[in-house]
Order: sequence, then structure tokens, then C-alpha cells
Amino acid sequence: MASKVQKPLPKATVAMVEESQAAGRVREIYDDIKATKKIDFVPNLWKTLASHPPLLEQIWMRLKVTMAPGRLDALTKEMIALAVSATNGCSYCVNSHTVAVKKLGLDNEGLGELMAVVAMFNATNSLAEGYQIEPDIVPEV
Amino acid sequence: MASKVQKPLPKATVAMVEESQAAGRVREIYDDIKATKKIDFVPNLWKTLASHPPLLEQIWMRLKVTMAPGRLDALTKEMIALAVSATNGCSYCVNSHTVAVKKLGLDNEGLGELMAVVAMFNATNSLAEGYQIEPDIVPEV
Amino acid sequence: MASKVQKPLPKATVAMVEESQAAGRVREIYDDIKATKKIDFVPNLWKTLASHPPLLEQIWMRLKVTMAPGRLDALTKEMIALAVSATNGCSYCVNSHTVAVKKLGLDNEGLGELMAVVAMFNATNSLAEGYQIEPDIVPEV
Amino acid sequence: MASKVQKPLPKATVAMVEESQAAGRVREIYDDIKATKKIDFVPNLWKTLASHPPLLEQIWMRLKVTMAPGRLDALTKEMIALAVSATNGCSYCVNSHTVAVKKLGLDNEGLGELMAVVAMFNATNSLAEGYQIEPDIVPEV
Amino acid sequence: MASKVQKPLPKATVAMVEESQAAGRVREIYDDIKATKKIDFVPNLWKTLASHPPLLEQIWMRLKVTMAPGRLDALTKEMIALAVSATNGCSYCVNSHTVAVKKLGLDNEGLGELMAVVAMFNATNSLAEGYQIEPDIVPEV
Amino acid sequence: MASKVQKPLPKATVAMVEESQAAGRVREIYDDIKATKKIDFVPNLWKTLASHPPLLEQIWMRLKVTMAPGRLDALTKEMIALAVSATNGCSYCVNSHTVAVKKLGLDNEGLGELMAVVAMFNATNSLAEGYQIEPDIVPEV
Repeated sequence: MASKVQKPLPKATVAMVEESQAAGRVREIYDDIKATKKIDFVPNLWKTLASHPPLLEQIWMRLKVTMAPGRLDALTKEMIALAVSATNGCSYCVNSHTVAVKKLGLDNEGLGELMAVVAMFNATNSLAEGYQIEPDIVPEV
Repeated sequence: MASKVQKPLPKATVAMVEESQAAGRVREIYDDIKATKKIDFVPNLWKTLASHPPLLEQIWMRLKVTMAPGRLDALTKEMIALAVSATNGCSYCVNSHTVAVKKLGLDNEGLGELMAVVAMFNATNSLAEGYQIEPDIVPEV
Repeated sequence: MASKVQKPLPKATVAMVEESQAAGRVREIYDDIKATKKIDFVPNLWKTLASHPPLLEQIWMRLKVTMAPGRLDALTKEMIALAVSATNGCSYCVNSHTVAVKKLGLDNEGLGELMAVVAMFNATNSLAEGYQIEPDIVPEV
Repeated sequence: MASKVQKPLPKATVAMVEESQAAGRVREIYDDIKATKKIDFVPNLWKTLASHPPLLEQIWMRLKVTMAPGRLDALTKEMIALAVSATNGCSYCVNSHTVAVKKLGLDNEGLGELMAVVAMFNATNSLAEGYQIEPDIVPEV
Repeated sequence: MASKVQKPLPKATVAMVEESQAAGRVREIYDDIKATKKIDFVPNLWKTLASHPPLLEQIWMRLKVTMAPGRLDALTKEMIALAVSATNGCSYCVNSHTVAVKKLGLDNEGLGELMAVVAMFNATNSLAEGYQIEPDIVPEV
Repeated sequence: MASKVQKPLPKATVAMVEESQAAGRVREIYDDIKATKKIDFVPNLWKTLASHPPLLEQIWMRLKVTMAPGRLDALTKEMIALAVSATNGCSYCVNSHTVAVKKLGLDNEGLGELMAVVAMFNATNSLAEGYQIEPDIVPEV
């Protein structure tokens, strides 16, 4: 149960590269992150990945392509990201994707519907596994 | 690695209640499932949950409410269900939600974008956890 | 969706040590498994772990101690094992623990209640993570 | 590794509905939660779900039915809830279900046996998956 | 429990692009996969991702960079991939990474040690979560 | 999103057995842990498991055997432990195994490569599950 005693919160396991320390390719990626996301700071995920610049580059380049609107719009993609993060229990990720869906206009009612769907299927997933449900034989769609 | 020898596939751990055996409340729920989902058969998930009728009733009643369109439309809800199922690795669930999103019009390009988002954030979730990324301090939205 | 075409089912990634091949310490452990579990065959889990005998020994010795009745009885321990396996989606494990709980007397109603609890808390777990619920401040128990 | 520097702990991603703000159906459910659980406060899970009242109602109504003693008693159901929460790594949930099992009389020895079972089968689950153990062919029970 | 009746095994939810059908960029990537991995066939993962060519390209390009030997050698990277896949319970992935570690020389003893480590820490992970172990206060390394 | 308000961090759900309180077998195990790991304090994991001494003994004895160098060296085993912990999102575990790999000489570049592999295969695992990729038919190795 929760303690009344104050305890330190763990921090990242490596030192982050602060914006003031960023140079060269890291600097360019930081600028691209702020411009692409229309934010005035570099989130800690990226400042941590910069501890190994090739990882920062790979992940950012792939994320930028993945999140560009296509058949699915930006809000749908962020809602899916939030559903994945809630299912995995990733605290940092849930917080950042919740900020994103709110900025894109999702209100508490929409967020509640999203969470209801996430909860429903985490429940049915465990039932399908817990009973080892047989695959349905259905015509190809 | 995959064998060339044919092996039996596990089946559900309890006997399913076939439509021909369904009576009373189970019969009513089976009819409601087919009418609500506009399908002419009862999926194995429901025929298995019917091995304990109160479970069939609880899950179906909640799923029916959860999936009714609201702020989020039916396709968005099914895509979220598929994202959760892919993240959990639930075979039965992935198969059934894929049938659903295709029926609702998602093509291979849309499904590919959905899977790209699921893959992207399963990757970043493991990075946020693997480095124990510190929470961003951002203004309330 | 499920295919109508027959496909091979993957088999274990290493060759199992069949009972007829077991010698020395592996033979002794196989006999102990059958005597302890009161079964007349060695389950595939153990025949596979025997591909590296120290692993067979470590896991069996620990499982034997863990499953011995103490404050919790055998059925309670097997139900917990099944709940963990359903949550993780481990097919082999769900099948073997379901056989065990049935042998210990759990009927479809009891199994249905167990699955209802597993489903309920997989749902609330995703909600607690999805909303990043704050810890309750409660008096120590 | 843990920092010596104090950091803020993330809080819920939506504003909780405090008891003083609760009205109508939310007020009734809060009263039902306190009466049913025999506690004098509303846990944060429920105050957060109240940000979308239909979600509060769906989850509470289903939890109330699921946790009512049947074939399985209240302590068994809470132990299963704790096993699921430990397996999923849900901090809020582990804390609240631990309070519950202690209130129902489980001592450190009983909790230790429960955790030993949870740890044992999270281990064997990964072995069954890691070796892709073949299903046992056993007679139906 | 396992059935004695033969059942169909689910297949991929989209049609794979067979090598005979591959053209243009997909054809080039298929050739690069075979050359890079020194195999004479294209694994089903890639033939399935080709149902949405941009996904095939993104994932292959990133995998090729990620798996190139650096501080960690090829066998170490494949063992980590297998540990992740066993922990997630991904059948296809466990099978393909097991083929890879064997090709790179890991024998049953080495594979057994790897699985022992995977099992050990899936156990301790559930204990750390199940007891909500407090972070150690240790000096920075 | 992260709050600016200081909140208490949850602590372990049971009282830890401090070194000053340890006696008999617990005392011996604490000494063995410090000698084996060459550290001058007992990590919180062990002080918490000591709340049920048989659990402390089982887990420590098995961990000591599992982590002894064999075909795989100590660093490889710790990297695998970190990969499993990142995949499961176990905060305590990620922190302690990161300390261990750094002590064994892994620098930020090596840690970055490890995390890149963990992220890559958490992504492909979700793709293999999300598309239900068919098993490859490959010759036995």
C-alpha cells in the first residue's frame, strides 16, 4: 500500500543529452522533433536515446514515417499508441500519448470510450487464452 | 522450427455449447449475438463462455455496450481491439478482430498502417522501460 | 481467419528426451515426476527440459517444493498457476493446469468463476495503467 | 539506478471526481462501493473512472458481480486478482489487492506461498514458450 | 487439453506476397534478405509484411542495421532476440530465432543456459512487481 | 502527464528484513549474497523475500546456480536479464540489471545496441502476432 514516507523516484539509467549539450546530428534531430511535433522542448525519451545517437536516429526516423497521416489520421494513430501503452503498462508512454490525444481534441468522454475498449479486450484476450478457444472457421473476407 | 509432421492442434479446455444445444437465456444471447453482429453463426468465444452461462451473459452484455458507436466509431474501436490483441499475442482475438476490421472496410494498406503503429509503440514502450525514462514535466492540457 | 487448409503445427525447438532414452539423474527425476504427480507418463515440458539436464533438475526441484500444500492448498495453487498462464497466454501451460484443476475437482462453474476473475482484473489492470491511477493513501494493514 | 534527487511522481492523466463533487449516479455508486467493500473512502481507481461515468458504472457493476463469493471464496478471488496484477506488473493493482488479502487474513507466510507460485509459473510459462513445448496428448478429464 | 482430433492451424490474416509475385522494390528487398541472411528462401514474416510494402521496407531496413555486429556480436543479438520472444510468447519468433542461434553454433547446453536465465528473471520480475520492491539506493556507476 | 506536486512513491507491500534484524539462515543467505555479488549491502529484493524465508532461500539458491558462468558468460547473462526486464517493464529489475551490466563493462554504446535489439524484436513480435504469421517450413538444424 502507499507509504506516507517520501521516497526518491528512479530516474533514467543513463544520463540524458540536454538540448544545451546537443551537437551535430543530435542537434538536427532535436530540432526536427520540435518542429515536427510543434513543441518547444525535447521529450525525455529522445534525450535518453541520444545517449547512443544511432538509436536516436533509427527510432526517430521510423516514428516520423509511422505517424505521418495516411489511411489512418493522427488522432487514430495516437489512440492506438495509447491502447498499446496501456496494455503494456508503460507509464512514460501512457503519459505522453495522453497529452497527444488531448491536444488532438479527445475529451474525457472519448478517452473513457477508448479505455473501455482497451479494458474489454484485455479481458476477452485472457478468456480466449484461458479457455484456449478454438479458431472459428469463417469464409475468407 | 516447424515440423513436417502433422500434429493435433489443442482445442478449447471445456466443451462448447453448440447452437443446437442452447436453451433459455443462452439461446437468447446467441440470437442477440447473431443479430447484433449481423452474422449467421455464433463464434467459438461465446459457445465456450456458455460453459458457465453467467460469464457468457456478463461478457456479452459488456461487450455490446462497449462496442456501440459513440465518440469513437465502430472501425476505430475494432482497430483498437486488434492493436490490444496483437500486443497481447492472442491468436483467436487477432483473427476475429481482423475479420471485423476488413468487414468495416479496412484494406491491406490501412491494416499495414495499423500494424506499423502497433510495432512502433511496442518498440518505444520497451525503450521507455529499458532505460527507465523520466517523466516529462509538461503543462497540464 | 482460420484456414480450411491443413498446416503443420510447430513442435518443440529441441528434441525431447523420451522415457525410453532417460538414464541416470534424468531417469530418477522422471520417476519422481510420475510418482509425485500420480501420473503414468512424463509431460512434454519435462522431456524437453531434459535436453539440458541441469535445467530439468532446477525447475523440477523448485516446482516440487512450490506446489507442496502449505498455507495454500493444492487446488488454490493450481488455480493461481492457471490464472498466471491465462494472463500470459501460454497455451501449453493453460492446457496442463486446466487438467490439474479438473482432477482436483473444479467443475465448469468453478472454472467459469476463475476465468471471470482473471478477465475482470486483466481489464482493471489496463485501466489502472491506462489512466495512471494514483496510489491510494491507506493506513498500513 | 535510483537517484538521490527527489522527482515528482506522475499522477492520473485525468482529474478524479472527488467524493465532495460526486452527484447523481456517481454519488450512488460511490456509496455502493464504500458499503460493499466496507471502507470509508472511495479508492482512486473509481474516482478516476468517474471522469467518464458510464465506464465507472460498467466496471463497478461487473466487479461487484465477479467478486461475490460463489464456488470460490473472497480470499481465493483476491489472491487470483493479486496473481494477475503481479504478472502484469500493475503497481496500483498489486497495492490494492495486497491490502485486500491481508484484510481477509492472509499473513506473510501465505503471501509468500502465493508469490512463490506466481514466480514459479511465470518461469515455466517462459520455458514452455521459449522451447515451444508440444501439447501433451492426454485423455479428456 | 490436447485433442486427438485434427484441427486446422490458423494462417496469416493477409495473403503473403510469394517470391514469384514480387516485383520492383519488394523484389529488391527479398533479394537483400536472402543475401544478408545467407538463406535461399524468404521467411513468411517478410512475405506477409510485403502486403503493405512500406512496412516491409521500414522493418527490414531497421532490422538490417540493428543486427549488424557492433559492440555485441551476432550470436549475442540473436540470443537477446530469443529471450524477448520467449518472454512475449511469440511462437513464430521463437522458432526463427532458435534456428538462428543454432546456425551460429549454440548447442543444447548453451540454449538451456539461455532458457534458465530467461525463466529465472521472468520469475524475479513477477516477485519485484508482486511485492512492489522499493528501488535500491546505490551510488551511480 | 507528470504533476509538479510531490507525491509519495509506493513502497514494498511487506516489511523488509533489515540486515540488523537478520538471524540464522536469513543471516547466512545475506552474507552469501554480499560475498557472491561482491557488494557491501543486501538489495531490497532479498530483504523483501526474507519476509517469507523459504522464498528467499529458493530464489537465491536458484539465481546463484543460474548466473554462474557456463557456456554463457556473466555479462551475456546479465544482458539477457536486462532484455527480459525491459520487455516486462519491471522497474526495479531494469535498474538493478543495468547497474550489473555497467559494472561488467558495458558502456552506453553497448547498452544502446542492446536496447536497439530489445526494441526491434518487441516490434517484430507484435507484427508476427498481429498478422498471425505462418510458421516457416525449414529443414531441421
